[in-house]
Amino acid sequence: MTRVAFLGLGAMGVPMAAALARRTPADGPTLVWNRHFDRAQAHAAEYGTHAATLQEVAGAGVIFTCLPTSADVDEVIGQIEEYLKEGTVWVDCTSGHPDAAHAQRGRLLACGVKFLDAPVSGGVTGAQAGTLTVMLGGPADEVQAVRPHLAFADKIVHVGNTGAGFTVKAINNALLAVNLWAAGEGLAALAGSGVDLGAALTVINASSGRSNASENLIPARVLTREFPPTFGLGLLAKDIGIALDVASANKSSTPVLAQVGALCRAAAQMVGPAEDHTAMLKLVEQMNGKELR
Amino acid sequence: MTRVAFLGLGAMGVPMAAALARRTPADGPTLVWNRHFDRAQAHAAEYGTHAATLQEVAGAGVIFTCLPTSADVDEVIGQIEEYLKEGTVWVDCTSGHPDAAHAQRGRLLACGVKFLDAPVSGGVTGAQAGTLTVMLGGPADEVQAVRPHLAFADKIVHVGNTGAGFTVKAINNALLAVNLWAAGEGLAALAGSGVDLGAALTVINASSGRSNASENLIPARVLTREFPPTFGLGLLAKDIGIALDVASANKSSTPVLAQVGALCRAAAQMVGPAEDHTAMLKLVEQMNGKELR
Amino acid sequence: MTRVAFLGLGAMGVPMAAALARRTPADGPTLVWNRHFDRAQAHAAEYGTHAATLQEVAGAGVIFTCLPTSADVDEVIGQIEEYLKEGTVWVDCTSGHPDAAHAQRGRLLACGVKFLDAPVSGGVTGAQAGTLTVMLGGPADEVQAVRPHLAFADKIVHVGNTGAGFTVKAINNALLAVNLWAAGEGLAALAGSGVDLGAALTVINASSGRSNASENLIPARVLTREFPPTFGLGLLAKDIGIALDVASANKSSTPVLAQVGALCRAAAQMVGPAEDHTAMLKLVEQMNGKELR
Amino acid sequence: MTRVAFLGLGAMGVPMAAALARRTPADGPTLVWNRHFDRAQAHAAEYGTHAATLQEVAGAGVIFTCLPTSADVDEVIGQIEEYLKEGTVWVDCTSGHPDAAHAQRGRLLACGVKFLDAPVSGGVTGAQAGTLTVMLGGPADEVQAVRPHLAFADKIVHVGNTGAGFTVKAINNALLAVNLWAAGEGLAALAGSGVDLGAALTVINASSGRSNASENLIPARVLTREFPPTFGLGLLAKDIGIALDVASANKSSTPVLAQVGALCRAAAQMVGPAEDHTAMLKLVEQMNGKELR
Repeated sequence: MTRVAFLGLGAMGVPMAAALARRTPADGPTLVWNRHFDRAQAHAAEYGTHAATLQEVAGAGVIFTCLPTSADVDEVIGQIEEYLKEGTVWVDCTSGHPDAAHAQRGRLLACGVKFLDAPVSGGVTGAQAGTLTVMLGGPADEVQAVRPHLAFADKIVHVGNTGAGFTVKAINNALLAVNLWAAGEGLAALAGSGVDLGAALTVINASSGRSNASENLIPARVLTREFPPTFGLGLLAKDIGIALDVASANKSSTPVLAQVGALCRAAAQMVGPAEDHTAMLKLVEQMNGKELR
Repeated sequence: MTRVAFLGLGAMGVPMAAALARRTPADGPTLVWNRHFDRAQAHAAEYGTHAATLQEVAGAGVIFTCLPTSADVDEVIGQIEEYLKEGTVWVDCTSGHPDAAHAQRGRLLACGVKFLDAPVSGGVTGAQAGTLTVMLGGPADEVQAVRPHLAFADKIVHVGNTGAGFTVKAINNALLAVNLWAAGEGLAALAGSGVDLGAALTVINASSGRSNASENLIPARVLTREFPPTFGLGLLAKDIGIALDVASANKSSTPVLAQVGALCRAAAQMVGPAEDHTAMLKLVEQMNGKELR
Repeated sequence: MTRVAFLGLGAMGVPMAAALARRTPADGPTLVWNRHFDRAQAHAAEYGTHAATLQEVAGAGVIFTCLPTSADVDEVIGQIEEYLKEGTVWVDCTSGHPDAAHAQRGRLLACGVKFLDAPVSGGVTGAQAGTLTVMLGGPADEVQAVRPHLAFADKIVHVGNTGAGFTVKAINNALLAVNLWAAGEGLAALAGSGVDLGAALTVINASSGRSNASENLIPARVLTREFPPTFGLGLLAKDIGIALDVASANKSSTPVLAQVGALCRAAAQMVGPAEDHTAMLKLVEQMNGKELR
Repeated sequence: MTRVAFLGLGAMGVPMAAALARRTPADGPTLVWNRHFDRAQAHAAEYGTHAATLQEVAGAGVIFTCLPTSADVDEVIGQIEEYLKEGTVWVDCTSGHPDAAHAQRGRLLACGVKFLDAPVSGGVTGAQAGTLTVMLGGPADEVQAVRPHLAFADKIVHVGNTGAGFTVKAINNALLAVNLWAAGEGLAALAGSGVDLGAALTVINASSGRSNASENLIPARVLTREFPPTFGLGLLAKDIGIALDVASANKSSTPVLAQVGALCRAAAQMVGPAEDHTAMLKLVEQMNGKELR
């Protein structure tokens, strides 16, 4: 019987912790913590979890974190470090930095705590449905041991050693950024030729140029002009920055990822980091003097 | 009763003409023509079509062309022009240039022949199954009238006026090139970090960074090291060149498409224009000093 | 004795025609023409030239044009064509398109008129001082024959056949755009690190990273926040577009020129085509959320 | 009277140490050290310096380092640390990393030793002539105090706080890389149009597109096909990597620097890191299927 704690009740964390709560009643309620404690209390009220202090959290057998950046995880580790007990497993679902993963694993191992990087994909919808994909970095036996606890996921992939989970997530998000930006450019050129964008997308999405961006994001978020703020543009810029750090560290040559990384950073600056990531196409629109409708 | 002719028996043309042959028996056998006439005779023998001269072709009510480039179509028009009869419809399934479409339409209208640009997507498999997507450019009434003849397609989309079909096709293929190249870069960076590429693709293809390139092309053609030559790299470089011509003509700003266009041209130069288009990733491999396996 | 005419009295044309006027008194006054005829009259009053109609211009032995684009030259040719006499030499100092050069040469040869593409560099200052550089495209004997008439230049280079002058000019301006944009990026990164930009430029301009952009344009026009409107951003975007057309036509792979071409077009859209070309760095500033001072 | 030591006798270090030796006789011979000690002995024999052990070096009042990378400097600090005496000034002329500068300064201050980052430009020729430019990062008073010792320089610029010297050097080299690569692309496009490259460079170097790359490097090193190995391609790739780290750290958006950084890394991989930096244009040549002659 393992007590489970979840730290970080953002857009993803709320449904992920709820999914944990649905699956682990025998171990007592899932502990939840958030920097703004009222969010933890609200979660407890709604999902039957228990709003816990960091000292209480430290008693759990598995501690999940899902925070904006690795720096936030570092800060929490600093606050909870003194209370941690040997044998605990720390599963970080943040879209973090592989360099941080190595440092965090070393720091936690000194407390007898194991660390796995375990970012997720699938968005808020997947979290609510318990159908996230988890990409795990760490030793195979530790990955194996933690699998039963990942109640929010229906696809669990062990992608490599410590940091590999963060690395794969960063590259995935870099590809998201490239595919989205390129689709925006393509639609701007089509609009400039007077082509109906809806008809064009119907064709592209039945053809070889399709991507998740063209199939899902652009029809639902861009052409509707809604840009619903789920995953922030500033976070996407951070993630593609991590991907470029990875490429730089292993001397990879990634000219297209590098260009889009810079354009994404410009979009975060000009459109706003808190806007939805799909709003990066507003910069494409400005560059082309037309709206994508 | 409309006699139908098909000109250009390449990888796509053979099954497309065969699909026409299956559907139009009441009008007599589908006429087929090819620059190397033995290919037309072989097609007739296999599919019950009739290998025709250009003079015979000119008697058809609907003439399809499916050639490598608009320049090839121009050449055929020059050879057949004197025989054309008023009322014929010319449907060009080439991945052509919108500037050529305007010129060809004007030239054919002078003979009383209508011209529609009608490139297709779906590849050889789609052509064999009769499930291609056709993107049509031209006046709505002409598009409407030609629909019943497109036996090789199960999705027919009218995307705009003359040239719009070619434009959409070029943009689609430009997005294909970007998504493919970017996925190659991402995998090279992952390989440099020691991540297993198969596991990474499993994750990416369940996540937001997925594209047709990551889901279909790379697993089947790149990681297998097969690079089966279906759609040539030189033709992809030509198509993204058309997309950039479109962008230039309407003053669109497409920095990522432009970058990938140049890299695609370099790949055609260095890897070989006759290689499969997925072999553009061999240049990514050279740039990174590693194979994508 | 050869009568000389100069068509196009813009920022460059005014001092170029004045330089011609200073050198050719024996042949009678230099003829000048401008679409807005009052500019020709003002030039005549100030520099002793003769404001002429196109019919009068057609009597000259050497006709210079210096207009915004090749399309403007086409328009003037259309208006003057009927009056042209055999043996005249047409010297086009426009930053034109090599495709236009071939067409214009063919069209004028049909009237017995020779055509040389002869764009210039050196700016308004060089034009006033008569120290422009002329890059000439055309047959060697025609280039040789026209040399004595190029009174506005002190460096005359025969760079190749018809169109080569325009091609070299376009590539030069593309390099100007790249060097300028890159220097702007570099300064933005330095500003972000708190480095004094004046000190940094002192170093760079004594080092390997220097360019005409870093040595002259940025200190005088950008850091001063003056951006004096001499050579327009829209024209620079047009010129790099010509360079990319050249590269596309001969299948060159120029990813950096292509990227900067797109960014330059975006800057013309967002900052304004009539702004000085150095104002393209205002887009770099927006992308980075800081001013270059 | 201050004893001076110089560590790192590479292509730059040899003449820099020789310049120091010419100016500081009253303080006794300049100490020189090199990892391969025979190079130090050879220097002593030729220039009247004294080949010293690290323990002897530690007695100097000013210690210069000029090594390939900051990692090499870290290694030397580790070896000499125990011998260092309070009041010494360490002047690092390496093209180093600003992050390393901060760490090194902190580490040396713990030994009572001051650290200034002081990379140089001007190449081997400038070093031999004693006309290098030094860009200094650190507190103003320390910069002022070290000026009299910089005998190899005739231009000394204080560009900012610790790390600023390395930052400016990295950006300078990034601009070198961009200007060089872009000029290579431009020449490849010109060659594709049949333009004589020598004539084109004559024009460009009298025009707005000129840069140190087009004026000096390409005529002397590329068109001659000599590519004399002075400054290595691998080191240039490292330097532009530092520039991109700087941009990333302060969230600058530098899409062109980013693309060229990736292409430079590819060139180091494909052409060879030990080749002269101008040999990066061999990749441009491969991409275009032609030589720049």
